[in-house]
Amino acid sequence: MTTSLLQDLLSALTLRDLRMRRSREAAGQPATPDRLQAECERLLASDGEASSISLSRSVFDLYARLDDGGRLEFFRCLKDRFGPDRAAIEQAYANYRNHGDEAALQQLFDACEPPRQELLRRLNLAPGGTRELVRMREDLLRHLDTESELRTVDRDFRHLFGSWFNRGFLVLRRIDWNTSASVLEKLIQYEAVHAIRDWDDLRRRLDPRDRRCFAFFHPALGDEPLIFVEVALTAGIPDGIQQIIHADGRSAGPEAATTAAFFGISNCQYGLRGISFGSFLLKQVVQELKHELPNLQTFVTLSPVPGFRDWLQRLREGEVSEPQVSEDRLASLELLDVPGWRHSEEGLADLRDSVLPLAAWYLAEAKNSRGLPLNPVARFHLGNGARLERINWLGDVSEKGLRNGVGLMVNYVYDLSEIEHNHERLANEGIVATSASVRRLLRQAGEQKQGVRS
Amino acid sequence: MTTSLLQDLLSALTLRDLRMRRSREAAGQPATPDRLQAECERLLASDGEASSISLSRSVFDLYARLDDGGRLEFFRCLKDRFGPDRAAIEQAYANYRNHGDEAALQQLFDACEPPRQELLRRLNLAPGGTRELVRMREDLLRHLDTESELRTVDRDFRHLFGSWFNRGFLVLRRIDWNTSASVLEKLIQYEAVHAIRDWDDLRRRLDPRDRRCFAFFHPALGDEPLIFVEVALTAGIPDGIQQIIHADGRSAGPEAATTAAFFGISNCQYGLRGISFGSFLLKQVVQELKHELPNLQTFVTLSPVPGFRDWLQRLREGEVSEPQVSEDRLASLELLDVPGWRHSEEGLADLRDSVLPLAAWYLAEAKNSRGLPLNPVARFHLGNGARLERINWLGDVSEKGLRNGVGLMVNYVYDLSEIEHNHERLANEGIVATSASVRRLLRQAGEQKQGVRS
Amino acid sequence: MTTSLLQDLLSALTLRDLRMRRSREAAGQPATPDRLQAECERLLASDGEASSISLSRSVFDLYARLDDGGRLEFFRCLKDRFGPDRAAIEQAYANYRNHGDEAALQQLFDACEPPRQELLRRLNLAPGGTRELVRMREDLLRHLDTESELRTVDRDFRHLFGSWFNRGFLVLRRIDWNTSASVLEKLIQYEAVHAIRDWDDLRRRLDPRDRRCFAFFHPALGDEPLIFVEVALTAGIPDGIQQIIHADGRSAGPEAATTAAFFGISNCQYGLRGISFGSFLLKQVVQELKHELPNLQTFVTLSPVPGFRDWLQRLREGEVSEPQVSEDRLASLELLDVPGWRHSEEGLADLRDSVLPLAAWYLAEAKNSRGLPLNPVARFHLGNGARLERINWLGDVSEKGLRNGVGLMVNYVYDLSEIEHNHERLANEGIVATSASVRRLLRQAGEQKQGVRS
Amino acid sequence: MTTSLLQDLLSALTLRDLRMRRSREAAGQPATPDRLQAECERLLASDGEASSISLSRSVFDLYARLDDGGRLEFFRCLKDRFGPDRAAIEQAYANYRNHGDEAALQQLFDACEPPRQELLRRLNLAPGGTRELVRMREDLLRHLDTESELRTVDRDFRHLFGSWFNRGFLVLRRIDWNTSASVLEKLIQYEAVHAIRDWDDLRRRLDPRDRRCFAFFHPALGDEPLIFVEVALTAGIPDGIQQIIHADGRSAGPEAATTAAFFGISNCQYGLRGISFGSFLLKQVVQELKHELPNLQTFVTLSPVPGFRDWLQRLREGEVSEPQVSEDRLASLELLDVPGWRHSEEGLADLRDSVLPLAAWYLAEAKNSRGLPLNPVARFHLGNGARLERINWLGDVSEKGLRNGVGLMVNYVYDLSEIEHNHERLANEGIVATSASVRRLLRQAGEQKQGVRS
Repeated sequence: MTTSLLQDLLSALTLRDLRMRRSREAAGQPATPDRLQAECERLLASDGEASSISLSRSVFDLYARLDDGGRLEFFRCLKDRFGPDRAAIEQAYANYRNHGDEAALQQLFDACEPPRQELLRRLNLAPGGTRELVRMREDLLRHLDTESELRTVDRDFRHLFGSWFNRGFLVLRRIDWNTSASVLEKLIQYEAVHAIRDWDDLRRRLDPRDRRCFAFFHPALGDEPLIFVEVALTAGIPDGIQQIIHADGRSAGPEAATTAAFFGISNCQYGLRGISFGSFLLKQVVQELKHELPNLQTFVTLSPVPGFRDWLQRLREGEVSEPQVSEDRLASLELLDVPGWRHSEEGLADLRDSVLPLAAWYLAEAKNSRGLPLNPVARFHLGNGARLERINWLGDVSEKGLRNGVGLMVNYVYDLSEIEHNHERLANEGIVATSASVRRLLRQAGEQKQGVRS
Repeated sequence: MTTSLLQDLLSALTLRDLRMRRSREAAGQPATPDRLQAECERLLASDGEASSISLSRSVFDLYARLDDGGRLEFFRCLKDRFGPDRAAIEQAYANYRNHGDEAALQQLFDACEPPRQELLRRLNLAPGGTRELVRMREDLLRHLDTESELRTVDRDFRHLFGSWFNRGFLVLRRIDWNTSASVLEKLIQYEAVHAIRDWDDLRRRLDPRDRRCFAFFHPALGDEPLIFVEVALTAGIPDGIQQIIHADGRSAGPEAATTAAFFGISNCQYGLRGISFGSFLLKQVVQELKHELPNLQTFVTLSPVPGFRDWLQRLREGEVSEPQVSEDRLASLELLDVPGWRHSEEGLADLRDSVLPLAAWYLAEAKNSRGLPLNPVARFHLGNGARLERINWLGDVSEKGLRNGVGLMVNYVYDLSEIEHNHERLANEGIVATSASVRRLLRQAGEQKQGVRS
Repeated sequence: MTTSLLQDLLSALTLRDLRMRRSREAAGQPATPDRLQAECERLLASDGEASSISLSRSVFDLYARLDDGGRLEFFRCLKDRFGPDRAAIEQAYANYRNHGDEAALQQLFDACEPPRQELLRRLNLAPGGTRELVRMREDLLRHLDTESELRTVDRDFRHLFGSWFNRGFLVLRRIDWNTSASVLEKLIQYEAVHAIRDWDDLRRRLDPRDRRCFAFFHPALGDEPLIFVEVALTAGIPDGIQQIIHADGRSAGPEAATTAAFFGISNCQYGLRGISFGSFLLKQVVQELKHELPNLQTFVTLSPVPGFRDWLQRLREGEVSEPQVSEDRLASLELLDVPGWRHSEEGLADLRDSVLPLAAWYLAEAKNSRGLPLNPVARFHLGNGARLERINWLGDVSEKGLRNGVGLMVNYVYDLSEIEHNHERLANEGIVATSASVRRLLRQAGEQKQGVRS
Repeated sequence: MTTSLLQDLLSALTLRDLRMRRSREAAGQPATPDRLQAECERLLASDGEASSISLSRSVFDLYARLDDGGRLEFFRCLKDRFGPDRAAIEQAYANYRNHGDEAALQQLFDACEPPRQELLRRLNLAPGGTRELVRMREDLLRHLDTESELRTVDRDFRHLFGSWFNRGFLVLRRIDWNTSASVLEKLIQYEAVHAIRDWDDLRRRLDPRDRRCFAFFHPALGDEPLIFVEVALTAGIPDGIQQIIHADGRSAGPEAATTAAFFGISNCQYGLRGISFGSFLLKQVVQELKHELPNLQTFVTLSPVPGFRDWLQRLREGEVSEPQVSEDRLASLELLDVPGWRHSEEGLADLRDSVLPLAAWYLAEAKNSRGLPLNPVARFHLGNGARLERINWLGDVSEKGLRNGVGLMVNYVYDLSEIEHNHERLANEGIVATSASVRRLLRQAGEQKQGVRS
């Protein structure tokens, strides 16, 4: 017997139940938020595992039959009806003030815990429950922008998902052309950075001897990857993405490689947003590759710079206060407004000399309100303890690359011996680890400012 | 790359670190509860995953080097130093009273949560962390009897384990003679009901074509089973255990079987006490067997009655108020005091006629303070929705069986069509589902009482 | 360690050797049939395994570098230079006549065995040798039509392949959407009956719950399938292929199916032509499906009738002597010459009434020189012991189906209880097993003949 | 569906058939060599796969029911009735003389091939046939000593087994404590060199981090290993077996090891005697270990010297002509006749100085009639291209080691760079590859001789 056989069985049973129930429902009982709420209350009131599971299935079934408005109503109900009971808090607090012992403290804690947490825990017991809760949170996340008061509900989802998707429960698997089609089609679907067009394109990415791909899986999600990373094994630090994703298949072979370049990291589950796997994934993959290929010395990313073009625009329009930029430099940036600028013969070198120091400044110095790098990709890698190594001019000449990041691609180096130190310096002092060449660019950005001042 | 390779790698790294650290320690810094507490505080204060993992390793390392007294001190410290901050609760409550919004509510909840919960969550992130926390709780459980104030700490362990060992994360695997020796040796070690003497004994249990064994595994514990169940496929409901565990290998074959008899269910992880898997295991195994062998019609246990002899003794001594028993019946029970009574020619039939109704009463009517069956095995199976089917005289003539349960073995039937109903009736009305034959015994027990009254 | 790891290793080693050797060769030693012959002779003369393997690699390397003409020359050399030594036969025969003992007999046998058999056996010892010999035979087969004297060489290949691809060494695997992409792409490539256009088409064939696909694999060929069969689970015997390969995904589900319809059987290895796997495959798949779905009662093919249109043409032109056909019937066949005849409103019913009896005659009565059915598909299934069940009018309206088989599709039923009997009757008496409806068609074909006579 | 499921199925079917047939047989038809012969003749005469398989099952069934005498009679029948038809040979030869073409040659070859070869090939088609034929040859081998005329039958078995157990079809698997109990129990059963007492002993051999074990498997034999090798990873070339098989579990770990020592190689299938796997196994294991542990530099055996004590005895008794030994040396050997000699304080050093040169001579110079080393273990390793590296005094002080090999253990080194060369020199010139220290011992042995001469 295999797990998948069993899961087939269970879902077959579940499906049959569902179908029976549906035909019953079809006879006159439509799914409504009220009925869903009532079923949730029954679930919370039940004490046994046996009924718990069938009630959970019923909750998921009703939820599945609601339309978008009905689901929004359900989320509001989770906030209001399945939030803490304020009277109970009062009472527990009074008791705690009177007695002050551990039991009273525990009661107060229990009174403060939103009952929806227990509700979600019970729903998670149903076969396939984790998967359905992840799908449910996808719906919830889509409403957060307009319904900010639902953030408190999302906080409970995220808290529980953080516990259930603990990295100790994640399984790293190598993905290659021998992987099942059902997993591979998800890669095509989820690749976020550099789109995979079709199966032939996928094969070109995965199959060459100098490519690797790894993904994290979780037992409760079966063959659904959580996150995956694509790696090219190269003879040096690569400076452009097109050479990698349109490779012609010729390569010196993995034995000759000294460098592993991570060129695509994609989260696969929107419903797990905010649950962080990437850092663990990269570190495990580094270990894995070191073991397979002891010759590898450098572990580096080839990363885009989303948002840089927007930031640059705001800088040109004076909406960004730092760094100060000389008029000459500002003038040279005007070439960016010319369609097809990258093929321009005139002014391109000036543009490059202006852009690169500003990009270094954007990546290393521009910070968000928490003092961390403004650029989300930089924030991720530098936060993991990587080093800002090199900024590559015309490293991504795809339309998307030019539009978002002025065609730049960045290398962040993962050096296991300095990761912890880099991370701590960024966290505690706000200082980004940089290479000598990036520091040179940063000095140039500073000098521009001084030029202005004088 | 396989998970186990990776785990080897990680533990090799960890071991190396450990060794380095140890040699450092050996140079003069002994492990003390104070230093362990300091490291835990650093872990709670850290914000990044990178340092989090090495700090966790350090915590586990220090803990491993403490002796029993040191560990007890650490548990007390978990209670006192890593419990909620009462001043913070005051402040959060005041703020909540003033504002009363969701944010204030959340802050109050956060203030009430013992920081040790977050500590345990962070420790769980280290490679192998789950396993080490399970071992840590083993130590904690051993202290609970004498240090009852540590129960509040255990409550947090149990709460988190309940979340991490969610049944959706458990993997059912069939265990047989093709299973790895590293798993099989754990069966020998953990079998709790009917001891497995050695590998030959194990083979006799597992290998015949009419035997099955299943276990639950969890990805974070690798090859460590959580719980396992042994099954015999038989032509009818079996009435004794010796025929099963000393079978001579002749069998009608699984094709001819109509009954699956669960004759041993053993929890393997003391550190997971109170986290319930058995009910899910049995139900999944029933599904599994139905699929493999569509001829199976009856799913039944062959279970011991631990504690019955003690209860009977207390009944004879008048310490148990119900049921009332006639003098004749009481007299017939005196044979139990005669060593080797089961070979006695005289009085054995009377003894049987007295014991069986009392056993039915003990299993179906004797309740604990929560209104559930007093006998723990009955409580488990009846709570799962099983039916009390048959009580077998001299069903276990081993020394242990005679000593604990007067040699009785009980069949509980799992009938999927009535499980939910049985469970609900027991939970809501305290009524145990019984077969006609057990009801007949219960009437006899009642008549005895009437006999006394008249 | 896994096999694939090992095979990677070995092929890496081999590749490196190859590369070294090639650079050496490139320095001045071209591959020629003479040098290949010399290397083969060294291999036959060597006595040790160590040198045997490197010599085998060298033989395969030289062969790979020959062009088509060079390879043909090598095959001729296999016939002439690695055939039996006639002088040695003379001598062995003389010795046998003198002594007549077992040893002399053995020597005579050895003298008669072509040395190329031993050569092939030794080549087979090299890592990947089996695979390379299968490729080598592909080249050989392409020459057989024009170089009939090479058939004696092919006989030795076939003899050895028959031994190496013994069905006891074949492994049956289910193929579905969870199978690796590297295997699935071979299905796209090898599907011979109803072409699979692309990955989406493949998914439509494999993924629905009422589809099954199985293939035979051999350990020496790794992930290369030898033969595969596609199955649709249906509620009755299907009468057309388009409904199956263009299914819309709606289905009653496998639980409701009573029939397993084999609608595509494709050999994957041209180099294994004449080594029969299909019969074993179908019988194993029947067992497999019966086990998975006990409700299945009928196992049937949905098969094309290649060659029927040609045979019909020859019948119309008087080149086929039997059956005799009335002028009316012959006239009705003229509609076939009209493009788009199947959409014709007039004459289509007459055409149908003429074609079906003739098709029954063609399948059941038209025999080849060995007394077996002339039609190759009929020969295969009827030779396996299947029964000619039904001939379906317009069962395949694809261009190919209309061109080759006048649009007919045929059901052959595999009934395990009569397979052996059917096979024996065909083999010994030349009698094809038919259903009542087919016998009716055969009578109609006979009556036409009588009509002519009268 | 898995292979094993299928095999279960097939064997279940087979078993049922068998049982049906048996009950039929039991009704009055005993198994006799005559009936077995008749069934074999039917099998040879049948032309179809369907009947072929059921006839094969019938042959195996009848064979299984014969007693030892019946089986011997069957083997004689294989020789006489299923040997070549002498009249047919005459006729084929006459035809060949007349025509002399390829077809006639082929006919002659076919006439010379013993029909039992085809019989064995057909038997091999039955499910489980290969396994049953291996068992059948076990019986045959037991008769060869007394029935030498059956060697011609065995030759056909060996010829076909050589083809079926081609190394390309063998699968190398690592064996460790995670291997299934059903495989591990076979190691206990088959270990030929240093007996494994029980499961605890097995665990001590396999489980330490510095141990490895590998075995070859064949798909037709399932979980039955063909041959296995035990390896210890050590810091230098080990000089004694007791330290290895009674290791206390402390070890520097595989990372620190420079040497892989093969200390036990055991063939598992008596019925495959003479089919050589050992050489391939060792070479594959060397590759495997090199890949896993790049630090390994030396691959060496720790091998016994069976037969040395006997040879020494014959030398002392003058039955062995070379080398000549001085009287002094001969006298020193007398200590060997004293029970417990290895604990003797006096004469032990002299004994050592006499024995070691003679052992070197025995291993490197004593040859059999084919010019290969007389000692079978030396013949195997030196024939594989290994080098005679070191002879270890008191390397095996077990009773068996002292009795067979005067307590010596020998290291043969496998150096991939010289394997082919060593093999060729031994095969062509009879020269054994030796280390400097062994050459020194050989010179001492020679000097003794000269000493005698002078």
